[in-house]
Amino acid sequence: MPKKVLVIGGCGFIGSHIVDGLLAAGTAVRVLDRRPEAFREPLPGVEYIFGDFSDPFQLLESLEGVDAVMHCASTTVPSTSNIDPVADISGNLISSVRLLKLLRQMNIGKLVYLSSGGTVYGVPQADPVSEDHPQNPISSYGIVKSAIEKYIFMEQELHGLSAVVLRASNPYGPRQGHTGIQGIIGTYLWKLARGEDLEVWGDGTVVRDFIYVKDMADICVAALNSEASGVYNAGAGEGTSVNEIVEAVRHATGRDFQPTYKVARAYDVPRIVLDIGRAQETFAWSPKVSLVEGVAESWNWVQSQVAPAH
Amino acid sequence: MPKKVLVIGGCGFIGSHIVDGLLAAGTAVRVLDRRPEAFREPLPGVEYIFGDFSDPFQLLESLEGVDAVMHCASTTVPSTSNIDPVADISGNLISSVRLLKLLRQMNIGKLVYLSSGGTVYGVPQADPVSEDHPQNPISSYGIVKSAIEKYIFMEQELHGLSAVVLRASNPYGPRQGHTGIQGIIGTYLWKLARGEDLEVWGDGTVVRDFIYVKDMADICVAALNSEASGVYNAGAGEGTSVNEIVEAVRHATGRDFQPTYKVARAYDVPRIVLDIGRAQETFAWSPKVSLVEGVAESWNWVQSQVAPAH
Repeated sequence: MPKKVLVIGGCGFIGSHIVDGLLAAGTAVRVLDRRPEAFREPLPGVEYIFGDFSDPFQLLESLEGVDAVMHCASTTVPSTSNIDPVADISGNLISSVRLLKLLRQMNIGKLVYLSSGGTVYGVPQADPVSEDHPQNPISSYGIVKSAIEKYIFMEQELHGLSAVVLRASNPYGPRQGHTGIQGIIGTYLWKLARGEDLEVWGDGTVVRDFIYVKDMADICVAALNSEASGVYNAGAGEGTSVNEIVEAVRHATGRDFQPTYKVARAYDVPRIVLDIGRAQETFAWSPKVSLVEGVAESWNWVQSQVAPAH
Repeated sequence: MPKKVLVIGGCGFIGSHIVDGLLAAGTAVRVLDRRPEAFREPLPGVEYIFGDFSDPFQLLESLEGVDAVMHCASTTVPSTSNIDPVADISGNLISSVRLLKLLRQMNIGKLVYLSSGGTVYGVPQADPVSEDHPQNPISSYGIVKSAIEKYIFMEQELHGLSAVVLRASNPYGPRQGHTGIQGIIGTYLWKLARGEDLEVWGDGTVVRDFIYVKDMADICVAALNSEASGVYNAGAGEGTSVNEIVEAVRHATGRDFQPTYKVARAYDVPRIVLDIGRAQETFAWSPKVSLVEGVAESWNWVQSQVAPAH
């Protein structure tokens, strides 16, 4: 088990929950991120370094004295990465390759990397999708994640790094912002809290794998504490349609609303659900929070942000 | 069939033979390369643009008026790409992504890309290796090629480019320089011609797939002229050990020599041979030149370079 972990991207939605998980396990935590958390004050006991992950000197400083790294930073999101793939490659691939070199030079032997189960496979040819599924991404985001994975495992093969790659599905929960299809639950709850209309692209039958963010943080912490290496899907292992999300949101919020149905988007594949058997077996981990519970927790949090208790 | 083809890297070893093949088929040819051919004068009827493929303006000028592109440029070789992966990513991946964007903007709908059957798969788990084999490269060269392939097929999927990716094995033949394991035949012949010792890494049982460069050029021209798209292995489809190469070289040169056996290199996988069934079927193509014939042709050429006829 590492004594001190650097969480790159530790002020983001998923990163902030990983930090919570590490602190709860008694692990010392340093965070490198571009800016403080959006929804919380800095946490006592956490060392924060604010700066750019793509700045090698900042990265060097951040790595000093840690014995494991959790890399969950990304400068892009799937839906926008194709607008400027060169920026995606520079900001994420090149920065991650530099990180690997620094890990080697500084004898830091453990890395957990948050990859993307929703984009590295492309259009699924199987259901559920296992880790060995062919990789035909249709976003730069997915191609870059896939290339980063390959550099990580080359480093492991040639230079002895011990690495876990977690291919996340769609995490949701407290502290989620509201951008794009991946953040549909957060988007819906924020819109409801603000009295805005909900939109559904297509007929609502599109199916995704949604995982509660604390379950996602749990597997990251388990991977950091494990001797295992390799690539693992990290999701709920179950599919939920957008219509089922709408129902869960109705149930959690107690509000009666009718979403506006809009024309389906060409890039939304009908269904993608991850096979999580390998992660369950290796890390003795399983998602614990049901969609109904998770959406209720998320709604409580959104309400606390929109109308603070008085 | 395209009327005019831009060959990026057309002054290189393989590129120069592709240019020959296109000219023989009556296709107009423009070449973009950093410098003129090493072993020939500029060819009549070919438009040469000397400049850097990574310079967007140079690339733009080169694309004007062509209706297909053969991309066989690389700024790195497998054995050295790991020394500076960032340069590999910048020089090859980013440049290729920029090329794709320009093709779209200029309505150039056909691309053939020379990828690498020797590096994108990594350590083979099958024999022969088919196109669907998992990709676990152990060189930056292979990772970058794999990522370029993914950007190409994303472009095809989203924007209608028609693309063929050819995963080449180890081409050899006239106009081959002499660097690294991939160029072992060229290296041996040049060394013999200069009276130098031949070296074998390990016991000579390492097996590779060697393809005569004119057979390689033939499949590139066939791919440019075909309506087919997708990824295809392009090799001999047969394995040849280093010891068999040594024998073929003895036979072709008529010289009696003893190679020096040296310690095996850790990164040399024991055997990799490509399954070329898909390319044979799709392009009605097959390698025509046997190893014995090809090595003899190569030897004739090396001799013509070392001691010009007088």
